[in-house]
Amino acid sequence: MQIAMIQDKIVPLEDLEPIYLDRGIYFGDGVYEVVRSYDGRVFALEEHLQRFAKNLSAIEIVGVDIDQIRSRVLKAFNTAGISNAKIYFHITRGSAPRNHVCDADLEPNFLLTVTKLPDDKKTKTKGIAVLTYPDCRWKRCDIKSLNLLPNVLARQNAAKKGCAEAILVDEAGLITEGAGSAFFAVLGQTLQTAPLTCNILPSITRKFALEAGKKIGLEIAEKSLTPQQAGGADELFIAVTTQDIVPVVEFDGKLIGDGKPGRYTKLLAQEFHAFTS
Amino acid sequence: MQIAMIQDKIVPLEDLEPIYLDRGIYFGDGVYEVVRSYDGRVFALEEHLQRFAKNLSAIEIVGVDIDQIRSRVLKAFNTAGISNAKIYFHITRGSAPRNHVCDADLEPNFLLTVTKLPDDKKTKTKGIAVLTYPDCRWKRCDIKSLNLLPNVLARQNAAKKGCAEAILVDEAGLITEGAGSAFFAVLGQTLQTAPLTCNILPSITRKFALEAGKKIGLEIAEKSLTPQQAGGADELFIAVTTQDIVPVVEFDGKLIGDGKPGRYTKLLAQEFHAFTS
Repeated sequence: MQIAMIQDKIVPLEDLEPIYLDRGIYFGDGVYEVVRSYDGRVFALEEHLQRFAKNLSAIEIVGVDIDQIRSRVLKAFNTAGISNAKIYFHITRGSAPRNHVCDADLEPNFLLTVTKLPDDKKTKTKGIAVLTYPDCRWKRCDIKSLNLLPNVLARQNAAKKGCAEAILVDEAGLITEGAGSAFFAVLGQTLQTAPLTCNILPSITRKFALEAGKKIGLEIAEKSLTPQQAGGADELFIAVTTQDIVPVVEFDGKLIGDGKPGRYTKLLAQEFHAFTS
Repeated sequence: MQIAMIQDKIVPLEDLEPIYLDRGIYFGDGVYEVVRSYDGRVFALEEHLQRFAKNLSAIEIVGVDIDQIRSRVLKAFNTAGISNAKIYFHITRGSAPRNHVCDADLEPNFLLTVTKLPDDKKTKTKGIAVLTYPDCRWKRCDIKSLNLLPNVLARQNAAKKGCAEAILVDEAGLITEGAGSAFFAVLGQTLQTAPLTCNILPSITRKFALEAGKKIGLEIAEKSLTPQQAGGADELFIAVTTQDIVPVVEFDGKLIGDGKPGRYTKLLAQEFHAFTS
C-alpha cells in the first residue's frame, strides 16, 4: 500500500489532502507577489498583476486568468477590511505525486493572505542596519519564484547580527539587491542602483523610487555598486513594497553619513507617498 | 480581520491549517532525501541519513533527531510493504506566518511518502536520450534543498523533446550533473564524472557507481566534461537513487556508440546490483 507519513502519522497516499502534494513544497514550483494598501487603497495592483503574469509565463504555468486573480485580490482585501494591509499571493503549478515533470493540464493552486502591516514609523525615523552576504541565488532572480532559500539564509544571518536586511554581493564583488528589497545609494546628486538584469527583481517599488528621484532633481545611475562604494555613500536606503523607502544608516557596521536618515532619502519618501495617496 | 484565500475560499487566517503556512511552500526552506529498496531491503539508508543530517545543518535547521527519522523511514517502509519502493522524505523549517526570518524554536515539519517504483527494465535495456540545458541553479547545489524550480524547468524542457533527463551545463561550458541525476562518461578505459564541488550534489549513487567502476578495472577521472566531449564519449550513463545506472544512448540528438547501452555500462550495472543484494 502506498502511504504518506506526516510527522508520526501514517495515512494511505490516496487519502492525502492535495495541499500535501503541492509542487510549491517539493520544488518551489510557483511564483508570488506582495501588494500593499495605503489607507484603504491597494497600491500599484496593475503593475504587480502584470509582473505576476510575466512570471507565470516565464516558468510556463499556463491558463491562469489574471482578471480572476485581480477579482480575488480585491475581494479578499475588501473582506479583510484592513486599511494598511499586506496582500501576499502565489500560484503553484498544482498538486500531484512528486515528479519533476507533470501533466500540462494540472490545475494551478492559488493561495493568498491579507495581514495587517505593522507600524513602521520608528524604523523609518531611525533607519536600519544592513549586512552584506554572498549572493548565492539562481541565475533568474528576475523571476519572483518560490525558490527563496538563499534569501532566507541571508536574512537570517543578518538578523542574528541585529541587521534588518542582507545586501547581496555577487561573485564579481558587486551588489545586486537586498534579500527582499531593492538597494539604493545617494552619492552627491546621483541616485544609484543596480541595472535591471536577470540577477535582480524588476522591483515595482524600485521603479517608483527612481521616478521620485527624478522628481526631486537627482541624476539617475543604473549601475552596480561595490560594498566599498556603498559604505562610502552619502545616503543609503532600501525599497520594498511593504515599507516603500527605508533609510539605511549602517552598512557592514559602518555608519552612513551622520548615522541618521539622509536628506534626500526623506525627500524621496515624501515624493513616494504622493504616488500612494 | 486577517484572512487567507485558497482558490476562491476565504477563511480567517487563524483557522488556516499549519500545512498552508509551511515554509517549504513559501521559501523552499527545507531539505529532502530519496531512498529506495531492492527486493524488500532499504539500500544505503545510513548514507542518506548522514547526508540529510549534513544538509539540515547546512541550512541551520536544528534539533532534528536522526534516529527518529531512521525509525520513521523504517516504520513507514514496513507498513507500506512494497518490496521495490521509493521513499521520499523532507523536513522543512516549520509552519509560521510568512517571514524570511523566523523563531529558532519553530517545530520542523516532516513529510514522507512510500510509493511503488515502476518497472524500469525496458528503460535500462533500451537506454535514454538526454538533452543539455543551462545550469541556472543556485551556488549551493551540494545541498539537497527544496529549491528545485530550475531542475523542473530543465527536466520539462527535456521531456517536451522526448528526452528523459536534462544535462546541465554551467556558464563555463562544463557539464555539472543531470537535473535529477549524476552524469558519467566512459572514454576508453576511463570512467569520468564531474568532481564534488558546491555545484553538484554529493550523490550516493555516484559514489557507488565509482566504486563499481574501480571494481571492473576502469580508471576514475573526477573531471568535468564539455558537451562536446560527452557527445564523443564511448558510453554515457546517469546514476540516480531510484534507478541506479541508466544508459544514455542519445546526447543532444547524437547517438552514443552504436546507440545501444555500452559494454562497461552494463558491467557497472551488474556490479552495482552486487551492492544492493
